[in-house]
Amino acid sequence: MTLGEIAQRIGAELQGDAEVPVRGVAGIESAGPDQVTFVANPKYAAQVRSTRAAAVLVEPDFPAVDAVATLRIRNPYLAFARVLDFFYAAPAYAPGVHPTAVVDPSAIIKDGAHIGAYAVIGPDVVLGSGAVVLPHVVIYQGARIGDRFFAHAHAVVREFCQIGDDVTLQNGAVIGGDGFGYAKDGTRWRKIVQSGVTVLEDGVEVQSNSCIDRASIGETRISRGSKVDNLVQVGHGSLVGQDTLLCAQVGLAGSTEIGDRVILAGQVGVAGHLKVGDDAVATAQTGIPSDVAPRSVVSGYPAMDNRQWLRAAAGFARLPELIREVRALRSRSDRNVSEARNGTDSNDTNG
Amino acid sequence: MTLGEIAQRIGAELQGDAEVPVRGVAGIESAGPDQVTFVANPKYAAQVRSTRAAAVLVEPDFPAVDAVATLRIRNPYLAFARVLDFFYAAPAYAPGVHPTAVVDPSAIIKDGAHIGAYAVIGPDVVLGSGAVVLPHVVIYQGARIGDRFFAHAHAVVREFCQIGDDVTLQNGAVIGGDGFGYAKDGTRWRKIVQSGVTVLEDGVEVQSNSCIDRASIGETRISRGSKVDNLVQVGHGSLVGQDTLLCAQVGLAGSTEIGDRVILAGQVGVAGHLKVGDDAVATAQTGIPSDVAPRSVVSGYPAMDNRQWLRAAAGFARLPELIREVRALRSRSDRNVSEARNGTDSNDTNG
Amino acid sequence: MTLGEIAQRIGAELQGDAEVPVRGVAGIESAGPDQVTFVANPKYAAQVRSTRAAAVLVEPDFPAVDAVATLRIRNPYLAFARVLDFFYAAPAYAPGVHPTAVVDPSAIIKDGAHIGAYAVIGPDVVLGSGAVVLPHVVIYQGARIGDRFFAHAHAVVREFCQIGDDVTLQNGAVIGGDGFGYAKDGTRWRKIVQSGVTVLEDGVEVQSNSCIDRASIGETRISRGSKVDNLVQVGHGSLVGQDTLLCAQVGLAGSTEIGDRVILAGQVGVAGHLKVGDDAVATAQTGIPSDVAPRSVVSGYPAMDNRQWLRAAAGFARLPELIREVRALRSRSDRNVSEARNGTDSNDTNG
Repeated sequence: MTLGEIAQRIGAELQGDAEVPVRGVAGIESAGPDQVTFVANPKYAAQVRSTRAAAVLVEPDFPAVDAVATLRIRNPYLAFARVLDFFYAAPAYAPGVHPTAVVDPSAIIKDGAHIGAYAVIGPDVVLGSGAVVLPHVVIYQGARIGDRFFAHAHAVVREFCQIGDDVTLQNGAVIGGDGFGYAKDGTRWRKIVQSGVTVLEDGVEVQSNSCIDRASIGETRISRGSKVDNLVQVGHGSLVGQDTLLCAQVGLAGSTEIGDRVILAGQVGVAGHLKVGDDAVATAQTGIPSDVAPRSVVSGYPAMDNRQWLRAAAGFARLPELIREVRALRSRSDRNVSEARNGTDSNDTNG
Repeated sequence: MTLGEIAQRIGAELQGDAEVPVRGVAGIESAGPDQVTFVANPKYAAQVRSTRAAAVLVEPDFPAVDAVATLRIRNPYLAFARVLDFFYAAPAYAPGVHPTAVVDPSAIIKDGAHIGAYAVIGPDVVLGSGAVVLPHVVIYQGARIGDRFFAHAHAVVREFCQIGDDVTLQNGAVIGGDGFGYAKDGTRWRKIVQSGVTVLEDGVEVQSNSCIDRASIGETRISRGSKVDNLVQVGHGSLVGQDTLLCAQVGLAGSTEIGDRVILAGQVGVAGHLKVGDDAVATAQTGIPSDVAPRSVVSGYPAMDNRQWLRAAAGFARLPELIREVRALRSRSDRNVSEARNGTDSNDTNG
Repeated sequence: MTLGEIAQRIGAELQGDAEVPVRGVAGIESAGPDQVTFVANPKYAAQVRSTRAAAVLVEPDFPAVDAVATLRIRNPYLAFARVLDFFYAAPAYAPGVHPTAVVDPSAIIKDGAHIGAYAVIGPDVVLGSGAVVLPHVVIYQGARIGDRFFAHAHAVVREFCQIGDDVTLQNGAVIGGDGFGYAKDGTRWRKIVQSGVTVLEDGVEVQSNSCIDRASIGETRISRGSKVDNLVQVGHGSLVGQDTLLCAQVGLAGSTEIGDRVILAGQVGVAGHLKVGDDAVATAQTGIPSDVAPRSVVSGYPAMDNRQWLRAAAGFARLPELIREVRALRSRSDRNVSEARNGTDSNDTNG
């Protein structure tokens, strides 16, 4: 493929030699003369001049560069993702059921499925067409799964859970494990039956070792297009909206409601029985104990407006200094008082 | 079942029509006319008037309601758990060993066990009566497990660990993985053999993908009736008391001692070689670097009394304002000093 | 073995009876008269006098003790690790491939490998000599693994990942799961192919249920001798240096660069596209949003110098008090102003 062909296929404006052959993509530092790279993060703009790449994907208004060809297009990161697809051949998993897979006779497996070694598919499961179920995946009884399901080794779908089309599970993801529900019975904890399910809508991806608990009653739901990173906890009865990102090690307590297009950065924690509005963003490690308004950006614990938090955090670092300053003011103030008194006394002596 | 029968079976006082048929339970918002619901969290008291439920489980002193029947009983949440059991039929796992299970001939499996597909049970394992071991569970050599053990797919019990009666493991729980023990050897880290075990006492539940490490020497112990949520880390040599709750993503370092009836909320971290006293509570994301007194409620990092922390956190948000105020006071104080001086000077000019 | 033999084998100076027989090791509180124990943490020095142990490993300059024999040696903790090895017999895994293991004919398994039940080894895998691959381990196609690999049940090595010699994976560790990479496409998220790999160099250990993601392009790398505790997240494209410790529940975002001999304590979070210098230490729960200098010790969020943080945290607890103090100063200052004015007025009445 040539630079010209790539420019044409993704609709970019090429500034450079259209005949240059391209054999792949790479990061801006490691890219060689037959690879395309990109700059989305302005931090790296300086490196554009020094890259050995065949061309750099940049925003249309990126300053002119002599050193290297540019492919100008809006959202160069997205364009890069598309170019990456041109050159990447994903491992192929041919249709067929491995002889060691244990598939219950009552399960319905639609056409084109690849069922790997030692996969276990329980009674009354429905698995859509084009599924790829890799070794050691376990799908419990009654789970209903849509088309083009992709489950990596050791992923689990628990009893009666419902999964839409184009859902991907990475290794060890647990969909529908029991919620953490106990009622106090004297000093003991009595387990509350987790009779509900987990629902993953179309296009959801859940990454490695994340846990999306089933509900005690009703459902836990991750809505269309949302993505869940590694080691995330979603508590029972929670609702996550559409196109939302839960980054690594985020934890949602029970009955939490997260809106659409929300981004919770790494290690964010959200208490139960509250709402995080649409398009809200929480920066890393934020702790959210109460509702968050739509479109707000929050930080800290308890979560507050990000700009306010930045100022407060700057103040936190200066606290020892502030305390010294206040002490100094008080002792000076003590002196002022006596000085003022002395002033008054001297007046009294007048006349 | 009718409302009257339910009232009788759980010992609740029914205010409403005893003949109303009940076919299940549901949350207060989704409950229909043949379902029972409950209100434990006062937040939802308002919804009682608008629910379509057949009846609502409430505290005995809950205000009178005309709109809906009430089942008055202490601890309505516990009562709800019991009613839920009336209507929920858990998946049944018939006794028997799946032909694909690999059970070492030296293992002792007591009566009534269900051993699922591809389960692996090592040498000298003792597994009590009524066990349910689901597909892909691996029990290493020498593990001793009590009665009514329930292990979900991909749970692991490591070599020589000891598990009491009525213990439940959710998917991917790892009981007795190696502790994180290394000794500095020059600039390298030398692994310290993790020769100890993990002990889970009667009634313990460990949920999905949590890790209860084995000890280097001696044991790591979770005591009777304690519950461990998803993605929790319990470091080697730690001791967790009875009826304690470790919520999702809690982390205990090594040799930590947690008392009885303690509650550590989500994402709490506890340093090693310290004690958290009985009945203590740590709110979400608390970081505990030193001992915590019994019955205390702590928050923040480093952990402090929760009321003190609430006041300090409120102050944190006001820090920028406070800093401005202190600046203003200083400049004013500077003026005061000169005013005082001017006052003195004017005196000097008198006479 | 006798105390004398142990002293000789580890090169310690024995103060006590060389003939005393030793049958094992234990913690200082539980050690019996035929066990050796140690004191590394000065916290426990007092317990040396009361221990029942045969001998205590201590630093050479440890005060003389009459009550118990001492084995004096530098780094007693390391010495303890060595003595522990004398008495601990790790479970043995004889060479051989379990009949239920599914090994692709194109895979190369070198001599002395133990391949457990239901292990799955994909096409073109190369597995070095002396490997121990326990039940249910899955190694995807094209993975290249060095000598003396040890993988516990349910560990996973994903396609084309590269693993050096003497690497250990605990249960459920996921090496090379997809990174969390999506490009915004309108309001949707488009998955970015994760075409890169994960590289674990010689002597790396990854503990239970941790996730070391593969890179989108290029690689994610954990360098020689580094150790990764349970439930750790290492984001795609990150580089972790040599002999570094990532403690439990640490999270690294994408393209993070961690130096050599770094220690990140439990639950530390590190943002993407930044560098943590060699020999840096971050205390538990620290949040690192920007570069950290070599050899620095940081705490808090945002991370700051540990001593500064300790002072600031002390100030945080005193914030309510500080606010009251500032209020008092202001009202007093108001009084001062009027007093000063009164002083001036009284002057005006003079003459």
